[in-house]
Order: sequence, then C-alpha cells, then structure tokens
Amino acid sequence: MKTLLERIIADCKHYTSQGHVATYIPELANVSPDKLGIYVSMNNGNEYSAGDCESSFTMQSVVKPLILLLALMDSGIDAVRDLVGVEATGKPFDAFNYSDQALTGAHINPMINTGAIALCTLIHGTSYHDRFSRLMELTRKLADNQNLDVDYSVYQSEKMTGNKNRALAYMLTAYGMITDPVEEILDCYFKACSISVNCKDLANIAHIFANHGIHPITGERQFPAEYAKYVNATLATCGMYDGSGEFALTVGFPAKSGVGGGIMAVIPHKMGIGVFAPALDKHGNSVAGVQALAMLSHELELSIY
Amino acid sequence: MKTLLERIIADCKHYTSQGHVATYIPELANVSPDKLGIYVSMNNGNEYSAGDCESSFTMQSVVKPLILLLALMDSGIDAVRDLVGVEATGKPFDAFNYSDQALTGAHINPMINTGAIALCTLIHGTSYHDRFSRLMELTRKLADNQNLDVDYSVYQSEKMTGNKNRALAYMLTAYGMITDPVEEILDCYFKACSISVNCKDLANIAHIFANHGIHPITGERQFPAEYAKYVNATLATCGMYDGSGEFALTVGFPAKSGVGGGIMAVIPHKMGIGVFAPALDKHGNSVAGVQALAMLSHELELSIY
Amino acid sequence: MKTLLERIIADCKHYTSQGHVATYIPELANVSPDKLGIYVSMNNGNEYSAGDCESSFTMQSVVKPLILLLALMDSGIDAVRDLVGVEATGKPFDAFNYSDQALTGAHINPMINTGAIALCTLIHGTSYHDRFSRLMELTRKLADNQNLDVDYSVYQSEKMTGNKNRALAYMLTAYGMITDPVEEILDCYFKACSISVNCKDLANIAHIFANHGIHPITGERQFPAEYAKYVNATLATCGMYDGSGEFALTVGFPAKSGVGGGIMAVIPHKMGIGVFAPALDKHGNSVAGVQALAMLSHELELSIY
Amino acid sequence: MKTLLERIIADCKHYTSQGHVATYIPELANVSPDKLGIYVSMNNGNEYSAGDCESSFTMQSVVKPLILLLALMDSGIDAVRDLVGVEATGKPFDAFNYSDQALTGAHINPMINTGAIALCTLIHGTSYHDRFSRLMELTRKLADNQNLDVDYSVYQSEKMTGNKNRALAYMLTAYGMITDPVEEILDCYFKACSISVNCKDLANIAHIFANHGIHPITGERQFPAEYAKYVNATLATCGMYDGSGEFALTVGFPAKSGVGGGIMAVIPHKMGIGVFAPALDKHGNSVAGVQALAMLSHELELSIY
Repeated sequence: MKTLLERIIADCKHYTSQGHVATYIPELANVSPDKLGIYVSMNNGNEYSAGDCESSFTMQSVVKPLILLLALMDSGIDAVRDLVGVEATGKPFDAFNYSDQALTGAHINPMINTGAIALCTLIHGTSYHDRFSRLMELTRKLADNQNLDVDYSVYQSEKMTGNKNRALAYMLTAYGMITDPVEEILDCYFKACSISVNCKDLANIAHIFANHGIHPITGERQFPAEYAKYVNATLATCGMYDGSGEFALTVGFPAKSGVGGGIMAVIPHKMGIGVFAPALDKHGNSVAGVQALAMLSHELELSIY
Repeated sequence: MKTLLERIIADCKHYTSQGHVATYIPELANVSPDKLGIYVSMNNGNEYSAGDCESSFTMQSVVKPLILLLALMDSGIDAVRDLVGVEATGKPFDAFNYSDQALTGAHINPMINTGAIALCTLIHGTSYHDRFSRLMELTRKLADNQNLDVDYSVYQSEKMTGNKNRALAYMLTAYGMITDPVEEILDCYFKACSISVNCKDLANIAHIFANHGIHPITGERQFPAEYAKYVNATLATCGMYDGSGEFALTVGFPAKSGVGGGIMAVIPHKMGIGVFAPALDKHGNSVAGVQALAMLSHELELSIY
Repeated sequence: MKTLLERIIADCKHYTSQGHVATYIPELANVSPDKLGIYVSMNNGNEYSAGDCESSFTMQSVVKPLILLLALMDSGIDAVRDLVGVEATGKPFDAFNYSDQALTGAHINPMINTGAIALCTLIHGTSYHDRFSRLMELTRKLADNQNLDVDYSVYQSEKMTGNKNRALAYMLTAYGMITDPVEEILDCYFKACSISVNCKDLANIAHIFANHGIHPITGERQFPAEYAKYVNATLATCGMYDGSGEFALTVGFPAKSGVGGGIMAVIPHKMGIGVFAPALDKHGNSVAGVQALAMLSHELELSIY
Repeated sequence: MKTLLERIIADCKHYTSQGHVATYIPELANVSPDKLGIYVSMNNGNEYSAGDCESSFTMQSVVKPLILLLALMDSGIDAVRDLVGVEATGKPFDAFNYSDQALTGAHINPMINTGAIALCTLIHGTSYHDRFSRLMELTRKLADNQNLDVDYSVYQSEKMTGNKNRALAYMLTAYGMITDPVEEILDCYFKACSISVNCKDLANIAHIFANHGIHPITGERQFPAEYAKYVNATLATCGMYDGSGEFALTVGFPAKSGVGGGIMAVIPHKMGIGVFAPALDKHGNSVAGVQALAMLSHELELSIY
C-alpha cells in the first residue's frame, strides 16, 4: 500500500504543473504549486502516506461537510432539510441561483457557498464566536488533532475580500432564509474556511464518515449513522463543484474539494483519504489530487458504482 | 385642459381599486389606495391640475432619472456609459442579472436598482452625506420647491429592510464595479428614494427634461440638452420596469414610475406631467396613474411614435 | 440635404471596414462589405439619396415590422397582443427565452424570431403560400415598387440552414402557441426574410409608418394610425436587437435592422429613411448604417426624445 | 425477503393516491393510478416479487441508460463523453439548457432528453430503423425476455405530440451536435421510450448493471465493467431528474425513473430492482415507487453512501 501510494505520487506529480493555484487572496496565491501529498486512514487502523502529506493548507470548502454535520447534530435532519436543499444546481459554487425572484432552499445545497452560509445559523451557540468554537472543537475531535487552528492571515484576507459571500448572505436575508446579522454569520464562515489542516487531518475526518460515525479504532460513536449517510450522499452528488458528475465516473466515491488544494474522500466501510495539491482546474478542484484519487480508485477498485 | 384633467380623474378613479399598494415597509402599506392626482406643467408656462395633486409621497424609483442626471453632470457621459449600460434587461427592477459569473455594465441600466446604486458613486462630494445633499439640492431646484425633504420614517424603514439592495451592492463590489463602502452608498440611495414630493414637483422636474434642460419660464439652462436626451431615451426604453414596452404602445412617451405610486412623464418640447395613485400593478407601476396618462395621451395625441 | 447626405456617406465610409458581414449562408457572406447607401423620403414629397442606394439586399429582420403590420391588419390588436408580448427580452434575437418551463407571449416580442414566426399564423390566407403572397403584395404596395420579389437563392439557403428557427417554432408548438405545420409557417417566414429590396424601398415603407398609415403624396390611408404607432413603438424599444437602448440614446428614433445590412428608420411626422451597409456589429446591426443615422439625427435634430 | 416485499407493498400502497399519472398522451393518462409492484433479482440468482409486478408499462426515460450503454458499446467512452457531458444540470429533464447562445456537451447529460436524443446518433446501424432494432435486441437480451416489444399506440402518440423533443433536436442540429435527419433520430427515440416492460424486466436489466456487465447466473459478460460503472455513476448523480439529490439521501443507490411509472434500481454487487407505480411527483418520479425503494433500502441497508 505504501509502495502504491508512492508510485501514485510519482506518476501524478507532473499534473501539479497543470491548473492554477487560487489567486483571489495573496495567502493562497503564494503557495508553491508543485506539492502533492496523500494520506490514507483505513478502517482496520492502518495508516499510509506519501508525498507532501505534512504540508498544511486551509480547508476552504472542505469544511462544508463539517458545517453540515454540526448543523445536523445541533438542529436535526428536518431543520437542515427545510433550510437547504440537496439537488445539484448545475452552476458554480458561488453563483447567484434563483428563479423568478424567488430564492428557496430548493435552489441551494450544503456544498455551495449560499447553502453553507445558511447552515451556520443552525449551529448552536450563544454567539457566532461560540458557534465557531464548537465547529473548531468538532473538527479537532474528528481529526484527532487538538492543535488544529485558524490561519489568521487567510481569515483576515477572506474577510476583507469576501464581498460575493456578503452579497449571497444579504440575498439569503432578503428572502427571509436567515435572520442573524450577516457580518457575524460570515465571520464564523470565513474562520471555518480558514482552518489549517494537512492530509492526515482530512483522512482522519473522512475515516469517521466512512465508518458511519463510529471511530474505527476506539469504536466510539461520534454522531448518528444517518448523518454520515446524509453527508456522504451530498458529497457524492455535489462535492466536487461542477465536476461532481465527472468525478463520479472517473473516481467513484464521495469527496469534497476546496480551493486551498485539499480533497477529503470517503470510501464507505473502507477508508478515509486526504490529498493535497494546490493547482486547480477550472471547476476549482485540485488537478493532481483528482488524478491521484482516480489512480488509487482504479488500483484498489474503490468505486462504489 | 382643466376640464379634461378633471374628466380623466373621474374616469380613471375606479382603477384605484385595482392593484395593490406596496407593502414591504409599513409607511408605504398605510397609504390610502384610492388617491389619484395629476399635474401638468406646459412649456408655455401654463399649469393645470386635478384630483389629489397635493398629496405627498416618496419618489422611490422616480428619483433614478435624477441620480442619472447628476452622475452625468458630475462625471460626464463617458464615465456614466462605461459604468452602467442602457439596454432593457427583460427582468424585474431588483433582479440579479448576470451571466456566467460575470457582471458587467452591459447587464444593468440606470433605471434598475443595481444601476442606480452604481451611479451614486459618480455623483461628486466629499462624503456620501455631501453627495446626497447635492442630489437633494438639484431636486429642489428642478422642482422649484425649496421645501422638499426626505421622509425620514420611510428612509429608516428602507434602510432597515433593504437587504436585497445590500446584496446587489455587494455584488457590484465583488465584481469591482464600485469600491466605496456599501453602507455609505446605500445610505445615499435610500435617502434619495425617500424624498417626499407631490404631483406638481414631478411635473416641474419633468418639464425641464421636456425642454431639454432649459427652464421653460426663466429660460435658464439647468443642464446640457444631451443629458436630457440621455435621460429621456432611457426612460422611453426602461422607465416603466417590465411594462416599458406596453407603456410605449399604449401611452407613448418617456416616463418613470416608483413604488410610492408616482409617475413622472416627459413629453419632449411640450410638457411635464406628475401623476400619483398608490395602487400598483404586478410590474410596480401605478394602475390608475398609467390609465390617466393613457387617456391624456389619447386626447391630446401626445405619443411620440 | 443632398449635400448633407453625401457628406455623411463620405464621413461614415470608413465604418464599413468595421464589423463583419453575416456568414451563416454563402449568399450573405459574399456581399462586398464596403458598400454604404442612404435614401430619405420626406413627408413633403422630397426625396434625397447618396451612396450605394441602388444596391439590393434581402430584408431579413427588417421584414418583421411588416409581418407585425399585416398581422394587425388581418387579426387586430387584441389577437396580436394576446399572442406576442411587447417587452424587450434582454436577450439576443434568436435566443430561447422562457422560464420555469413555461413559454408565454410575455417572453417574446414581434422583433425577435420567435415572435415574428408566431405572428405569421395571424396573417390571413388559405395557405401559407397565400399568406406570403399577401405579405409580398403589401410590401410592394408600401414600397411603391411592383418589381419587388424574393431572392430565391437566399430563401433556399435560409430554409436549408434554419434549424434554430425550426427549434424555436417547435417550441412554440410544444407550448400551444402555434398549431399550423411548422415547415409551412417557416416557409412563409424564410421567404419573407429573403425579399430583396434597396434603400429607396425601405425609405418608402418607413415613410408611411412615419405618416401614421397615410401615403404622404397620394394622401391615401394604407392602414389605421394606431397600427403605425404600435409598430413604431415596438421598433423604438426592440427594433435594434440588444442595441436598442444604445440606439435610442445616440440616434433617437424608431428603426429596424436586419442581418442583410439594411436599416429602416421612421421619424414620425417627418420622414422615412433606408440605409444599407452590410458589415454588422456584435448585435447584428449595420455599423456604418447606425453611424450614418446618428450623424443625420444629430445634424437635423431628429431625436424624438 | 418475499414477506418483506409484501409488507413494503402493503405499507406503501397508500402512496399511490399521492401524485398524478402523466397525462400528456391518453395512453399514459388512462393507467389506473393505484398499481404498485416490485421485483428483485439478486446476484445469487434468487428472485422475489410482490404486488402488481406483472403489469406492463412503457419504459419512457428508463430506456435512457440503455441508449447510453449501446452508445458506449458501439462508439466507446471518448465519443460518448465528447458529445454529451455528465454533470447534473439543475434543470428539468426537458429544459432548454444553454447559455450565451452556445450549446455544448457540457450543458447536457445522458439522462435528460437532449442528451439521450444526441446519443441515438452514436448507436451503430445502417438506418435509424436498424439502430432501434439493435437497441430493442439489447433490451430483450438484458431483460432475458424475447417477447419485449414497442407499445405502438404509445409510440404513435409520442410521435404526434413530441414537439418539445423536436425543438430540442433542432437545437442540437443548429449547434452542429447532430447531423442526421431529426425525424429519423426522433423516431428511434420515441420507439425506445415506448418499449413495454414489467418490473421483472427492469430488475433483470438492473441486475447486470449491478454485476458490472456479467450475467449473474450464466456468468456471461454482456458488456465491459467500465461501461456499467459509467452508467451507474450517471444514474447516481442524474437518474432521478431534479430529485436525484434527495433520492441519494433517502434511498442511496443508482436508479432511473420514467414518466410511465417505472423505476430501475441498481445496487452494485448485490441486486437489480424493478418497481412500478404510475402516480408521479412533481419531478416525474413514481411516488409510491420511491417510497418502496426507500423502505427496502432502509430494511436491508442498501445505501452505498
């Protein structure tokens, strides 16, 4: 397995020269584009890694499944489902998606910005500072890493430049879908996107989704199985932006990418995987990361379809 | 003429029971829907009126031609044209109109909210307080009424509930079309929409647009003729929201309506007209106001087509 | 006047090198792009011309106002208005414009393909051959030119390549807006687009619209005044494709362009104008033709706004 | 298992009174809406059924995976992928989906009408009659039922009323995506939609997709495993129209529904399922059929996520 991962890293390395790192804030633009790392946490407790798996990067959209999970844990399936739909939108992650002047939950889903921002309001807490702290704690717990924290310079930049997210949040407000102060909600969202992780952290988190909420090693249930299925199914249909259909065909398991270059992949009953390679394709997915997952899926027959 | 106007008021009065007054803020919802007034300022100096022409109401979108005019006066045609297009959008006045994630001036025009908000940034002033003061002064001057002022309770309500406009303004920011602080720009815009006027004020303003910038009585030029044509042409194609084409057919001259129930109509070389009737059709145009203008146009053959 | 027109042709000649002739069929692609002609028919009976005003070209979309007129004459305003709306769509002339799977008259207008195709069904006749003959006769009569005829090679090419129009017509059928056989309706429409005219023909037709249905020389009424206003108002808001707003600002009177390079312009109460220059801008409007009309409008103060 | 299926039929029977049978052609409208049947073909060769599993119905969109499969078998993955994309469109199955006047493969997928029509052109054959015969043969072979045939009265009705599909096909032609005669392609497509099957037929076909192309009983390979994965992944992301995301959450395996009331479901490595209940929800999916699959998925833990 270790050998396989190293071969995959070697074979996919040249894909790091394809695509482009995100440039909308300097912190992302300055990442060296040739990194590629992978980490696999198997349900039997074995762990394998190769390449730049120690490099840290910000979660960005990879945090969306965790926002969805905590909203489910705090407010339950009905409240989540009422607020935010589950259909693929056929549009980019930051698109204004609405028709005939009506914006409803049916137009959005938890894996696009509008949906994730709305779901922050279903996380419990006395303040948005508090809500974010609970999300941070959950992330640390699932990643088995108490040292996880926000990259504050990324967070500051996100906050400064995040006007499209402000527009989306005020649109949610205008249609009565959220009522809390926009800047407070966005502060929570921007911090969440700025949590710094590495491949191992993502693999560990994915690991528990793969095992339907039970920690594979300790056997401790972290959250109900039906929440894991909710998240995994959502990742399978919408996790890779506008490339979700292609990813289902060529790789074939639930996964979530972020513009920081990370991908968290869930192979139900089998393993969690974290990959990192910062150069992105036009959809915002890591080019080399997708290729590495495709190769791994092919070699180990991991497609669920 | 006086007799004609009174007959029009009598004949069109029953239309005030059609349509609905705007309800998004209490100040607009509480207006009595059966009012109907009309005021005509002719180029030869004669003035005629009938019905509830003393009732005051807030300008709302009727202020858009004045924002456009002041932007033209302060920044010139090229700057205005570069920032905000002139084509009808085929969508409601507060629609998010953009394609393929690109928002450009070609997607908006000065008679929809996005365009009017953007044009506030082309009004000169040391602050947005100052810019609004200059717009207020211009409005008073053109209306020949130094007593005009903001209806502060409407303004407060607009500001409190104006989240869709916030969304539109942050979208403009996200695409680099405006750079000033959103809340300051919107404060100017909300105040402008809340200027309280009556039919005479609108007729007087329209009067000068009809006379291509020259005050018909004093002979004093208020602004260049080409700015009048710019505004009048824009009103003709986009002034009555999604009912602009219908209005061109059935009435046939440039006009601008607002959800406060006012309509300002410009008959080039002939007269300015102000009408007021607060019940609106589905496009946001005053039902009885449009009917009164249609009847007047028919009787006096005012169509420019 | 003659001198003015010759100066305009000279000054605008260089615009013929901007833009591109239509290329979707060989007959249009083979036109020499440097032609520029203008013809003016004034209400007092005077006629002036300059440049390539004898060159013939196919009407293409310039025939749309005539289809609208004949539909009005045969079926009346209510039937026309019920079938086809009047608002600008904010989309290209051959766009699929519908929302939420519902296509209604509100989504289309007489100056876009879908609307013009639908209006062919409101022209009377025992067959579509007969309907077209009546349209041909009307065109000859208004143009004062019994020699007008279809350019059959253009017609054959249009018919062969017109699959987007077939798609639009079947969409109209699917939504119950038309019920006659699609190929028969399209045969009438393709023939209409292929009528061959020159600048004088267009000026003569426009002339009568300018005079609200009465032939300016003979004094004979050709059609009711209200139909002229219906057509002229529609031209003012939608006649120049997605450039109608811009044209209203910079030129300022009703006009209809076609991809054959012709423009027919109506200056109410004053004159009709025909221009021809085959190189088109991105909206499908003749570049040099628009410039010539802008210059003429400026020199003679022809803007109606 | 037999007992479980009977309990599911009993428990879900009341859902047949929800939703509405398709009414666009009389043959579909006349179906009795209270039918409910289910058939399960397991990989170990066992078969179980309950309810109205002998009732026949037309495949309608359930034939789309077979059109996709035969296009893959005849023309290969690259040709299929080049012509027709794989992303969910976020729009109804018969929507016009295109942007900025450009229609490309990226706008469509094999599970919407436009995509399926296009894929008919990648099936081999000397004529479209021949192409359909080959599709018919494949369907019979996979269903293990040589008696399968077209319901000719449904086919005639589809052909008569299928103007929206004609519009979609001419749009594909206009954008150069298909070049064969539209009526011939559509004849093949309408016949394919009109193939009459029962629950057992669907279960048998699904069975082979579940076993990645190998007949579970005979062990004979019918098509390459990668084609099965291509089809199954496409069903998982787009198989249930605009309800695909919801279906992934609540049921959790690849499936394809049709407006005839049938659903074919694939549980990889385990079983194929056919259900039938003609009353449809707003997306066009069988209400009781989806509920029956949800209950079965829950009882047997069949979700792949």
